[in-house]
Amino acid sequence: MTETSLKSETADCSVCHYVRNLIEYTSNYFRTGKQAMGFKKTDQVKNNEDLERERKKCSFNPLELTHLIDGGPEKTKERKEREHYFLSDPELKDSVPQDYLSHKEKYEQAVRKACLLFQKVTQLRDKGGDLEIFRQTLSGMLGSAILKDGNPITLHYVMFLPTLVGQGTVEQQAEWMGRAWNCDIIGTYAQTELGHGTFIRGLETTAHYDPKRKEFILNSPTLTSYKWWPGGLGHTANYAVVVAQLHTQGVCHGIHPFIVQLRDEETHKPMPGIKIGEIGTKLGMNATNNGYLGFDNVRIPREQMLMKNAQVLEDGTYVKSPSDKLTYGTMMFVRVVILQDMAGYMSKAATISIRYSAVRRQSELKPGEPEPQILDYTTQQYKLFPNLAACFALRFNAAWLWNMYNSVTAELEEGDLDRLPELHALSCCLKAVCTADVAHGVETCRLACGGHGYMTCSSMPSIYGLVTAASTYEGENTVLLLQTARYLIKAWQQAVGGMALTPTVAYLKHAVTGNTGLRRWENTAECIVRAHQQVAAGKIKMCADNMDRRIRGGISPEDAWNMTSIELAQCAEAHARAIIVNRFVETVAELIVSDALKTVLTQLSELYGVYWLLQKSGDFLMYSDVTSQDISSLQKWMEQLLAQIRPNAVGIVDGFDICDEILSSALGCYDGRVYERLFEEASKSPLNKEPVNISFQKYLKPFLKASL
Amino acid sequence: MTETSLKSETADCSVCHYVRNLIEYTSNYFRTGKQAMGFKKTDQVKNNEDLERERKKCSFNPLELTHLIDGGPEKTKERKEREHYFLSDPELKDSVPQDYLSHKEKYEQAVRKACLLFQKVTQLRDKGGDLEIFRQTLSGMLGSAILKDGNPITLHYVMFLPTLVGQGTVEQQAEWMGRAWNCDIIGTYAQTELGHGTFIRGLETTAHYDPKRKEFILNSPTLTSYKWWPGGLGHTANYAVVVAQLHTQGVCHGIHPFIVQLRDEETHKPMPGIKIGEIGTKLGMNATNNGYLGFDNVRIPREQMLMKNAQVLEDGTYVKSPSDKLTYGTMMFVRVVILQDMAGYMSKAATISIRYSAVRRQSELKPGEPEPQILDYTTQQYKLFPNLAACFALRFNAAWLWNMYNSVTAELEEGDLDRLPELHALSCCLKAVCTADVAHGVETCRLACGGHGYMTCSSMPSIYGLVTAASTYEGENTVLLLQTARYLIKAWQQAVGGMALTPTVAYLKHAVTGNTGLRRWENTAECIVRAHQQVAAGKIKMCADNMDRRIRGGISPEDAWNMTSIELAQCAEAHARAIIVNRFVETVAELIVSDALKTVLTQLSELYGVYWLLQKSGDFLMYSDVTSQDISSLQKWMEQLLAQIRPNAVGIVDGFDICDEILSSALGCYDGRVYERLFEEASKSPLNKEPVNISFQKYLKPFLKASL
Repeated sequence: MTETSLKSETADCSVCHYVRNLIEYTSNYFRTGKQAMGFKKTDQVKNNEDLERERKKCSFNPLELTHLIDGGPEKTKERKEREHYFLSDPELKDSVPQDYLSHKEKYEQAVRKACLLFQKVTQLRDKGGDLEIFRQTLSGMLGSAILKDGNPITLHYVMFLPTLVGQGTVEQQAEWMGRAWNCDIIGTYAQTELGHGTFIRGLETTAHYDPKRKEFILNSPTLTSYKWWPGGLGHTANYAVVVAQLHTQGVCHGIHPFIVQLRDEETHKPMPGIKIGEIGTKLGMNATNNGYLGFDNVRIPREQMLMKNAQVLEDGTYVKSPSDKLTYGTMMFVRVVILQDMAGYMSKAATISIRYSAVRRQSELKPGEPEPQILDYTTQQYKLFPNLAACFALRFNAAWLWNMYNSVTAELEEGDLDRLPELHALSCCLKAVCTADVAHGVETCRLACGGHGYMTCSSMPSIYGLVTAASTYEGENTVLLLQTARYLIKAWQQAVGGMALTPTVAYLKHAVTGNTGLRRWENTAECIVRAHQQVAAGKIKMCADNMDRRIRGGISPEDAWNMTSIELAQCAEAHARAIIVNRFVETVAELIVSDALKTVLTQLSELYGVYWLLQKSGDFLMYSDVTSQDISSLQKWMEQLLAQIRPNAVGIVDGFDICDEILSSALGCYDGRVYERLFEEASKSPLNKEPVNISFQKYLKPFLKASL
Repeated sequence: MTETSLKSETADCSVCHYVRNLIEYTSNYFRTGKQAMGFKKTDQVKNNEDLERERKKCSFNPLELTHLIDGGPEKTKERKEREHYFLSDPELKDSVPQDYLSHKEKYEQAVRKACLLFQKVTQLRDKGGDLEIFRQTLSGMLGSAILKDGNPITLHYVMFLPTLVGQGTVEQQAEWMGRAWNCDIIGTYAQTELGHGTFIRGLETTAHYDPKRKEFILNSPTLTSYKWWPGGLGHTANYAVVVAQLHTQGVCHGIHPFIVQLRDEETHKPMPGIKIGEIGTKLGMNATNNGYLGFDNVRIPREQMLMKNAQVLEDGTYVKSPSDKLTYGTMMFVRVVILQDMAGYMSKAATISIRYSAVRRQSELKPGEPEPQILDYTTQQYKLFPNLAACFALRFNAAWLWNMYNSVTAELEEGDLDRLPELHALSCCLKAVCTADVAHGVETCRLACGGHGYMTCSSMPSIYGLVTAASTYEGENTVLLLQTARYLIKAWQQAVGGMALTPTVAYLKHAVTGNTGLRRWENTAECIVRAHQQVAAGKIKMCADNMDRRIRGGISPEDAWNMTSIELAQCAEAHARAIIVNRFVETVAELIVSDALKTVLTQLSELYGVYWLLQKSGDFLMYSDVTSQDISSLQKWMEQLLAQIRPNAVGIVDGFDICDEILSSALGCYDGRVYERLFEEASKSPLNKEPVNISFQKYLKPFLKASL
């Protein structure tokens, strides 16, 4: 996109204003070396004055933060151009907000927009755009701005295509990839069943090999074996990768992936033996078209089992996969992406609630004085700023895990599996803790917006609907925490046995040698990090001891595990927190940014660490250097940090640079015209298009007149 | 309703089965003195076997619990008859689940059902039924079973009528009550504005008295002065009590209530000068028709100011109300009702999640063994049972607060205001803590149901939508906690000054005299209660000290209050918890029930106390007799309690006796046929009525064929 095309902006799109401002401010900033005072808009109605005042008193340049997040000014420019390309398209907007539509209408609109979206994506790609565009439109902020309640085609790109690549042979890829890549067919990934989710070994769908006809026969032997949940499965996809228990030569070989045609390519009617539909309405993501799928003797050619790893030969001979661990990769990749998404959603919620809290005035601090901005209430800061800090904690940890994922994957390809368990343990507990934190954080931010946060036009309810789902999908959180705990107990045993420890559990060695001693507490980031590690180590040791005690008492290891599992899940959580705090503090220390920005980021990292210390003060009193005398000084430190962050809060969320179209919130818009926008949104309700609703004549009037 | 009418049951209604079982079991139980084995159903498909096994091993009679909750066998019978009367009416059922409808259709269906519901209520009333029926249909479980997403007429009964009674003169009641009581007119209560909620002094709507025409002129001077949120205001009510700033003789006298006609009684068209509509879609309660309302020189006769308390004479002279405190009553009444409602919603969520956890089998505890019921996982018990205990904590505390409310109201009428501040402080913190607990508890139960809990047919999302709203309405929770904190700080000063303390803060005197000393910890209910009181006292003292320190340091009392407010809100929370735990333990101790039930209730009360102690272990280590050595023994005690409650969990929720129509959950039904019901619910989706959706021809096919 060129400078010229930027000028062909539509009146509706605020992205272009941003882009223009961005260019202007970037050049100013780097020319004069002075701090520009945030963003501003020119050709619009006046911005809210409180918000403008906040921007003036900001002590750092939000644009520097934007560039830091994007990875440099060029990346920021590219992102904004891409946002403009999509968000300025009137066809990708809703004429009536989808919350007013029926479930069926929502789906139909979602298909319309999804097709258009991927047409545009394909056009960009064909013009030589990079693949980043897929990430941005599929799981990033941009995609969820256009398809606010889910995308019925996402799984084609996120699961169907990657599975063909990851599990298909060269011949299978040759046959299927072209058609899938060009969207001649639309696929999904059908694994979860009505009766089984996280525990995939329990899946019940069967695929029996018939050597006579060289076909697999798929069946759903029970009600609970029906596929249930896959996105796009209901009425959208015409193909699926189906995960089923493979039976050949009378033996069950466990679950394997198969390509199955679901619907006729011309008529879209379900294929013979395919029982298919959608599963119904949900808390959120009502446009993803989650479906069910049953098989009644559905036959597919032998070639449609994906055979890059395990194989079934023509005669039915089963050839095992060289390593089970090869499939771990995708799962871990998805968890890294979830962390990135969580950072994005948390940033949206923080932006909305902090801007609204700067605009909203309520009650009184001192009699006779004007009503204060609610952002001035310490209790409000306490609700918002730890979540603001979490945006960075998530982002920095996601980036770190992403790097680790890439290097471990590279090692894997050279046959080195050493770091896989560590990566797996990390991805499990970080996914669990971050999704739970963000769900809770988003709700805290929503409730901090009072009644208006309950309105869908605030966007807060839909953000919650999206993030809370992540606590369950891609591994239920408690199950994941217990997987990490298993790794930690092993690591503890290694530590006790004097064996070498992988870097992320190296802190255990201090706990073993017992040379932690009690050191004098100081309110420093270093002490905070060490204390979090002491707590994690203390809780891991305690779990190991409790396991031992129970086993020595004659309880089976499995029962002992179950009996200790509350504490085991908590020790995995403490480990994750120690990792996150450490990474946050270290990343900030290493960043090469202006002093002004560094100060702000340091305050946020300290707030994050202190906040969680105080949330779990019991653990710290039991396992770390913190004594009960230190708690009140930590409380004061936290209160100071809140006060220090207060004047920069709006600047920080401005620095996230989430444009109005993506925020999609009457409460969070850049201009702060909250009340005007609430009214504008209400005016879009179809009920408000007529002064008297039909229900008056039909029901209410007869009721009112009944007693006359 | 007679025995005979019970037999005229419809096939759809499971209530009648319950009633019949009830009668059968009650007579058995009281005749033989033996424990009947819970409920059972006869003429239905087979119940889930796991659930039946749970019922057989229950150690107490769930029916005794049902009677305890209802207040005796007769009350149970009455409740069930009432439930049957409404729930067997096919007209009050949805042909298509409302989640599939558009927003407008949802509203129209809600008006239809609300009119029918109140017709039936009126019929019952006219046949001599008691007023309990109003409570049950308006705020109880029954009402929310019929109008699952809110009732657009509720505020007529809950706010409009009571305000006429509470604030109208005898003449005004004579003029308006008859018409309102007979539903010739439908009213609502318009207080909250776009710009002001909890802080009602800040309301901006004006009512200027014009002595020439003896009228008030109502205006909305700003955008933020528009009324915003009142239920039924959008398109349903034709009258409202409007709260506005009264101006007369050039002086503003603060907010007062006025009766205003909103719509023509014949045509339902908005009256001149009335700008009215609905506010749009929300996280939940989308059928309540929350509205906005603006005034443009709307004139009403002087007689339409409600003048029981303050008055404006014909010449414009303002006559003050004898006491401001008289209006407190309604607010506190509503908060008591909220506690009762919260107990009901928590019971629904507990019933659904516990029954589902007994039916769902997943993963493995021991290799080779069958998949266990997920209720056997200790982590699952840890999620569910503290919330099961909370059902009782809420119920017993609501009942206690209700009694206190009644006696204080009686004292008020005799001019005795002494206990009003204590009741106010209690109602504030209990409302805040209970609504927050239940919102969190419902979500925990929902997440414990895995992916299926995300489906609306589980009913969990709509329960959450209803309960989370209660954290904001009728006083935002943080604001309420700080009001209680103000009372507590005063109480502390009284305690220090050696003055007498009201009963609910009497525990402060030990903290002042310092004779708490450290006593040896024992795992008893008595120690648990004392420890909670020690924590509350310790935190109140700490807040008072921090306030003092800040004020002595030259900070104004108002700023010191704000700076201390995080800890102040927490001390109010600790106070509420101490109250709840104490009340739970004492109520159970006083109950006259069988030993078997007493044992179960004692376990639940202990679990509640220990759970919250461990959740806030830092506070207990700092302020109570608990030492870090005790924490691990408390953890073991909690784990033991979970194991003890496990075999009775299904029996306990059966004892809540919430019929399937009220639960309205595929996961929670009495028969445990979870998977069949999930399928039945999916089959109701309009999308599933046709094999190929229109979006295929319109959008998907052109997209798929684009590259060919």
